[in-house]
Amino acid sequence: MFEARLHQADVWKKVIDAVKELVQEATIDCSDTGISLQAMDSAHVSLVSLLLRSDGFETFRCDRNMSLGLNIASTAKILKCAGSTDSVTLKAGDKADTITFLFESRNQEKVSEFELKLMDLDVDHLGIPETDYKCVIKMPASELQRICRDLGQIGDSVVISVAKDGVRFSSTGDLGSGNIKLSQTANADKPEEAVSIEMIEAVSMTYSLHYFNIFTKAAPLASQVILSLTADVPAVVEFPIEDLGYIRYYLAPKIEDDDS
Amino acid sequence: MFEARLHQADVWKKVIDAVKELVQEATIDCSDTGISLQAMDSAHVSLVSLLLRSDGFETFRCDRNMSLGLNIASTAKILKCAGSTDSVTLKAGDKADTITFLFESRNQEKVSEFELKLMDLDVDHLGIPETDYKCVIKMPASELQRICRDLGQIGDSVVISVAKDGVRFSSTGDLGSGNIKLSQTANADKPEEAVSIEMIEAVSMTYSLHYFNIFTKAAPLASQVILSLTADVPAVVEFPIEDLGYIRYYLAPKIEDDDS
Amino acid sequence: MFEARLHQADVWKKVIDAVKELVQEATIDCSDTGISLQAMDSAHVSLVSLLLRSDGFETFRCDRNMSLGLNIASTAKILKCAGSTDSVTLKAGDKADTITFLFESRNQEKVSEFELKLMDLDVDHLGIPETDYKCVIKMPASELQRICRDLGQIGDSVVISVAKDGVRFSSTGDLGSGNIKLSQTANADKPEEAVSIEMIEAVSMTYSLHYFNIFTKAAPLASQVILSLTADVPAVVEFPIEDLGYIRYYLAPKIEDDDS
Repeated sequence: MFEARLHQADVWKKVIDAVKELVQEATIDCSDTGISLQAMDSAHVSLVSLLLRSDGFETFRCDRNMSLGLNIASTAKILKCAGSTDSVTLKAGDKADTITFLFESRNQEKVSEFELKLMDLDVDHLGIPETDYKCVIKMPASELQRICRDLGQIGDSVVISVAKDGVRFSSTGDLGSGNIKLSQTANADKPEEAVSIEMIEAVSMTYSLHYFNIFTKAAPLASQVILSLTADVPAVVEFPIEDLGYIRYYLAPKIEDDDS
Repeated sequence: MFEARLHQADVWKKVIDAVKELVQEATIDCSDTGISLQAMDSAHVSLVSLLLRSDGFETFRCDRNMSLGLNIASTAKILKCAGSTDSVTLKAGDKADTITFLFESRNQEKVSEFELKLMDLDVDHLGIPETDYKCVIKMPASELQRICRDLGQIGDSVVISVAKDGVRFSSTGDLGSGNIKLSQTANADKPEEAVSIEMIEAVSMTYSLHYFNIFTKAAPLASQVILSLTADVPAVVEFPIEDLGYIRYYLAPKIEDDDS
Repeated sequence: MFEARLHQADVWKKVIDAVKELVQEATIDCSDTGISLQAMDSAHVSLVSLLLRSDGFETFRCDRNMSLGLNIASTAKILKCAGSTDSVTLKAGDKADTITFLFESRNQEKVSEFELKLMDLDVDHLGIPETDYKCVIKMPASELQRICRDLGQIGDSVVISVAKDGVRFSSTGDLGSGNIKLSQTANADKPEEAVSIEMIEAVSMTYSLHYFNIFTKAAPLASQVILSLTADVPAVVEFPIEDLGYIRYYLAPKIEDDDS
């Protein structure tokens, strides 16, 4: 028996929105520590890893570990049926072939129950090696989203270059080039607008803007995003989810610095 | 000579929007009691019936009964040209082949006159038998619209089941099933958010979601919608139009309970 | 060396938006008096003329006259990357083959530099003869935009008829006809909502609504638009740009009064 209740449907909506452009189907793993999801995109280029800790839920019960195979587009359709302030409870029996989404309005006058058929998916857990990253950048999530969208007008790749005092995003294409520099903020009045850089070693690597533009769909989940970079190692783009956990994306740098 | 003036163009815009997805052409019947329109959709499955009473108009004059054949899409185009707070006057001469829409801004500094060519339509008045319905549900119009849209994600049909304490809308499809229950509200502070049920006999019937989704385009006209249901008899979905009348839709239940 | 700094990127965004539906490529001419652009649309039917005076810029330097050939769609893409309150600086070296757009956020914490490749365009300056127009109408820019959009629902041409007390816009098409009359306003409390007419001689001419609908894309640049009309002479549709200059469109009247 698995049952997990969250006050606001909004978090689930945003989590699924953050996953659905990358993967069509995925398994969520439920245990007494929480809910996790790990999946590669269909091109096997990037990896998404989600963790929602049990103690962040209003109520959480998971008698034994379960893996539930979800069609992500169908899950998104069902979550659209929740009012944004509805509470949402996920429920599944021990050998269930469906998962139930229960949406309850604040005043309990509207109660909706949706059953989604589960899928039988091959589960393929990937070990993610622990890495000490050379550069860790914290910046507003919406700013990273904006920068990736803007540079997407110019080229297909972004070069991220980190120095002590700032980080530079650049792209080149047929029409010309673009170059955006963010300075580390001294002491921000608004912490959510701060840019901070921890650097052991300067890094300058090239990444696919296509993937970065998909990752930043998760921006509504977090005020700040954490970029962890090391040369020739996959970058991590992490959106912390308040009180619950995180969604992380992994993407290897491009080997050759071409923009085609 | 026919002439009818209404303070706010918005009502006409919403009325035509509520009709235009169902019928391409329709006759409006003008008499000294008001304006009415009755039409079946092109598939002859549902019926829309509109009444705007003469005493709800600012000024109303209709010397003799007239039937004016309108292309609904063209009427909608012309009404789009009215500012939402403009007054609108409809005018037609006794043997006119056009109808005039006169839009006047509040300060009279902008006056627009549009002439629409009338159409020669076969008029085919349908007698709607009076029925005492077994269940009458009043609920927020926007809530019905939301429920039909949400269940449209799941299946093609909705089963509406009425009990004394609440009404249940359910749908089934390839991805699973959905089930939304509204409770009768005790005593709502906001009458427009109330759900009330008058029931002589429980009813549970299946209807096409496609048509319900078209009917609920009328939701902007009314805060509350009135659903009148009896087993094996067409349902009535009524949107009262304040001070003026109503727009009603009639739809027979599906005989077989299939969702294909 | 050319360098011109403007406080708000918004003006540049709106200027390019006002040009981009009419011309794909254009030359901007820079001199110590300011920046100008003149171009015909690809069908050689209408002309757009832009002037931004140097004294309206925050800083302006132009050592010698330069003509810079721009792809307008690429310029629009780059300007989209500016925050609307960013300052924008245009820079070009004396024999440069690129133009640089520098966007700086208010707090200087985000600095973006985009380089756009210049194009080699044939420059073909058109002399615009000075004309004393018989009618000059000032009216809200958004109102002209609305009228052209509305009459575009009805027909392809608009007849503009000017009399002492008002101006009439009319159009005819398959569904019927439309006729919008604006009265001269007595003494408007809000000057930006005023309609004023200076008339030496009544004018009634027919113009293409297609082009008027393109010209009125410039409405966000100005609260008022100035229409200058004389029979059988190109009309001028001018949007003044506060403190900087103007954008003007020229369009010859239609010879025959057909709406096809």
